[in-house]
Amino acid sequence: MTVPLRKLLTSFVLMLVVTLPAAAQFGQPQSSKSVFPPQDLADMKRLQQAALSDDYAWNQLAHLTDNIGPRPTGSAQAQAAAEYVAAEMRKLGLEVQLEKCTVPHWVRGRETGELVEFPGMAPGTAQKIVLTALGNSVATPPEGITADVIAVRNMEELQALGREKVQGRIVVFNYPYDEQLAQQGMAGPAYGQSVVYRVAGASMAARLGAVAALNRSAGGADYRLPHTGMMQYADGVNKVPAGSIAAEDAALVDRLARQGRVRMHLVLTPQTLEPATGYNVIADLKGSEHPEQVVIVSGHLDSWDLGTGAIDDGAGVVVSMETVKAIKQLGLVPKRTIRFIAWMDEELAGSGGKQYDADHANDMANQFAAIETDLGAGHAVGINANGPAELQALLRPIGNLLASQGASLIQAGGGGSDIGPLMQKGVPGFSPIQDVRTYFHYHHTAADTLDKVNPQFLRENSAVIAVLAYALATVPQDLPHNPAGPVRE
Amino acid sequence: MTVPLRKLLTSFVLMLVVTLPAAAQFGQPQSSKSVFPPQDLADMKRLQQAALSDDYAWNQLAHLTDNIGPRPTGSAQAQAAAEYVAAEMRKLGLEVQLEKCTVPHWVRGRETGELVEFPGMAPGTAQKIVLTALGNSVATPPEGITADVIAVRNMEELQALGREKVQGRIVVFNYPYDEQLAQQGMAGPAYGQSVVYRVAGASMAARLGAVAALNRSAGGADYRLPHTGMMQYADGVNKVPAGSIAAEDAALVDRLARQGRVRMHLVLTPQTLEPATGYNVIADLKGSEHPEQVVIVSGHLDSWDLGTGAIDDGAGVVVSMETVKAIKQLGLVPKRTIRFIAWMDEELAGSGGKQYDADHANDMANQFAAIETDLGAGHAVGINANGPAELQALLRPIGNLLASQGASLIQAGGGGSDIGPLMQKGVPGFSPIQDVRTYFHYHHTAADTLDKVNPQFLRENSAVIAVLAYALATVPQDLPHNPAGPVRE
Repeated sequence: MTVPLRKLLTSFVLMLVVTLPAAAQFGQPQSSKSVFPPQDLADMKRLQQAALSDDYAWNQLAHLTDNIGPRPTGSAQAQAAAEYVAAEMRKLGLEVQLEKCTVPHWVRGRETGELVEFPGMAPGTAQKIVLTALGNSVATPPEGITADVIAVRNMEELQALGREKVQGRIVVFNYPYDEQLAQQGMAGPAYGQSVVYRVAGASMAARLGAVAALNRSAGGADYRLPHTGMMQYADGVNKVPAGSIAAEDAALVDRLARQGRVRMHLVLTPQTLEPATGYNVIADLKGSEHPEQVVIVSGHLDSWDLGTGAIDDGAGVVVSMETVKAIKQLGLVPKRTIRFIAWMDEELAGSGGKQYDADHANDMANQFAAIETDLGAGHAVGINANGPAELQALLRPIGNLLASQGASLIQAGGGGSDIGPLMQKGVPGFSPIQDVRTYFHYHHTAADTLDKVNPQFLRENSAVIAVLAYALATVPQDLPHNPAGPVRE
Repeated sequence: MTVPLRKLLTSFVLMLVVTLPAAAQFGQPQSSKSVFPPQDLADMKRLQQAALSDDYAWNQLAHLTDNIGPRPTGSAQAQAAAEYVAAEMRKLGLEVQLEKCTVPHWVRGRETGELVEFPGMAPGTAQKIVLTALGNSVATPPEGITADVIAVRNMEELQALGREKVQGRIVVFNYPYDEQLAQQGMAGPAYGQSVVYRVAGASMAARLGAVAALNRSAGGADYRLPHTGMMQYADGVNKVPAGSIAAEDAALVDRLARQGRVRMHLVLTPQTLEPATGYNVIADLKGSEHPEQVVIVSGHLDSWDLGTGAIDDGAGVVVSMETVKAIKQLGLVPKRTIRFIAWMDEELAGSGGKQYDADHANDMANQFAAIETDLGAGHAVGINANGPAELQALLRPIGNLLASQGASLIQAGGGGSDIGPLMQKGVPGFSPIQDVRTYFHYHHTAADTLDKVNPQFLRENSAVIAVLAYALATVPQDLPHNPAGPVRE
């Protein structure tokens, strides 16, 4: 798929705004007239306690990450994970279907970088550059390319250099992830600012004749860790190889290039194979009064290939699994159907979310609400409810109920990219509000592994999602909708 | 060189005790009768201020790490660094000699690990294991080895398994670095406990018939970062390939191996080449009254190959360079000779330190004092003085002088491994006391790069070392010696 650069940037930034939570606003438990009957609230309290004391989610996460491993779209592991989760849902007695979708199949190859000429270099030496290819990137020739390097801080600096100085060069975008911003609770904006160069850097560089583009990794860790992720080529530009280099290496290249000539040997040999078949795993816990109305509770099953996808997004899948498991175990029956979904291909093309949207185009009125957890499993502090002020007011009693675990906030915003197509059609979207200060340290890296999830925080998230899902599936009225579509702060 | 395992462990632990600082003890600026004349103290105050406001050390560190890069023993970069530092010292007007030594020449090859069988594994998949070869390790065959894996928490667990269960296996030592201990200021003991498995794990495993040994990385970072370092083979054991695996991977293997059979494909192809020639860079700033007496101020110039050796030990070299530069620039002339030394081969065999000791065997009485900085450039809080209580008392006025920068502590202990042979002969050894809480996050990893050094903290360390060196070179009496050799807490 190719898209115009402007559109690519616009849609990507919009997606970020929709899916990333805003910084915490002032919000306290408040008393208000509750639409939730006392018995339902009592059931939710039991559900919260059950989720807070269960290790089912953790055990599922361990299986997905340790025993299955990385689950990139199109891979045997992604397929194995879909079959595994489907079987687990059947064990719980849910009605399971595998929703087929066609997914891109991009596979990583060799990837090395080396500075073979730079100021002061001792004869016969070189400096290694730590990097990784970006999803969708084309390859260099097998033997790699060797070219002069231009380092810029941002796209304005690149534009100012112009075609003459960029042509034939490898462009390094040394735009830093703003860790200070992230530590102030604004990891989303910090990521949004820097990830632009990952998604669109190659197109910016290729427009001026560059032969490859490398972006400084969009993340806050300082452990020489490259962050992979999806990139896209804009229409009409030469497709050049695109990679992400560790923050340290971006800074090194920048410092050296300001001293004199720097040449890099770059090898990236990923392949885009024939599209593959993937599956959304859909499991219904049938509602008693309005079984046709569904409340989606979801995470995405595919992951990047460098780590084992614990925070992105094994955690989102397993808190959703815990939700239906805990409801089932307590013998609760929601009025509406709670639909567990483990989405396929969030990372590369969003095929799973788009497929569901297409398959349910004629059934959109019954998509009552959609929850997605896709920002890890940091300490949960509340609920993002993407809709008008009345929607947040409606959920106030749920915030009050969750106050005992420190999760009382109810805010506008949130959602997730797999439920994005539904939200665009007016389906209210929800996500947990979490501590994401270190999320982008690990996200899309080799270090996204089981140990990055704190079992207690995982249970907290399960409790928030279970209570929220049950509340949405039992609330005795329709949800306030935003007629203009989802809230965009 | 082979050594008995017991001796290997004993000497290694002793080295750690000698060179790693103890936890900070209570210590405050105190008034005492000073042996330092007021004019000398005034000169030291000027020296402190000069070092605190100079960027010479930083610029030298940038050159060593960016423009020369990793400097493993025996490499072209190590040679280039020695020539560069010698030239810089000549620029300052110092008398320079290159002291030749024979160094081992071990070079890294390919290194990959993969779990090719484990419980729950999907057909056609594998789990990648992040690892790196250890210095001195022998290689696997080029195509690697594939063997069952045994995971143990410590050497007692290994012994309990016995030969029958270890024979033919790859042993993974999942002994964790105690990060909590490190954060309490006891990074040295935390490192000491875990590094035993890096140094001697292969011998422990080979004694029971193992075919390879992998230790959980001796460091506190959780970014899937393997920590290399020196290992040694004990006498009489089969030399098996030895590597260090990331903490996450050690934990993964441990969890999987407790569930069932785990097989690993391991490729490590390092080579031990013919010994090479290396050089200690020695530069004398001649003393006015006792030029024959020398105060050594030093760091080691070689580094590991994964990173660029900024904290280990570019920092130690450049604070020592700053010391002679600042003294020279202020026109100060010490009574004794201040001898800058950039040691070669601290990391693999300690050849440089041993060579100096051998070359000066008949001149030991003139080795007045020796300073080594080799624990990075964290915030400096004082001075380790390895000798009797009278030695620390003598330095009290220096601690008082440094109190203005928060570096007033004077403690027993410290030193460094390159000056270890001198200290063994009774030469008083000194080192800065620093904040080392995060030192072992980066040490011996790819992430030991320039950005890990804080310019302000580097200046602080330069000031401490410059003042200490000048104080030792002007103190109007001999130093109190510990007749039994260096202090071992």
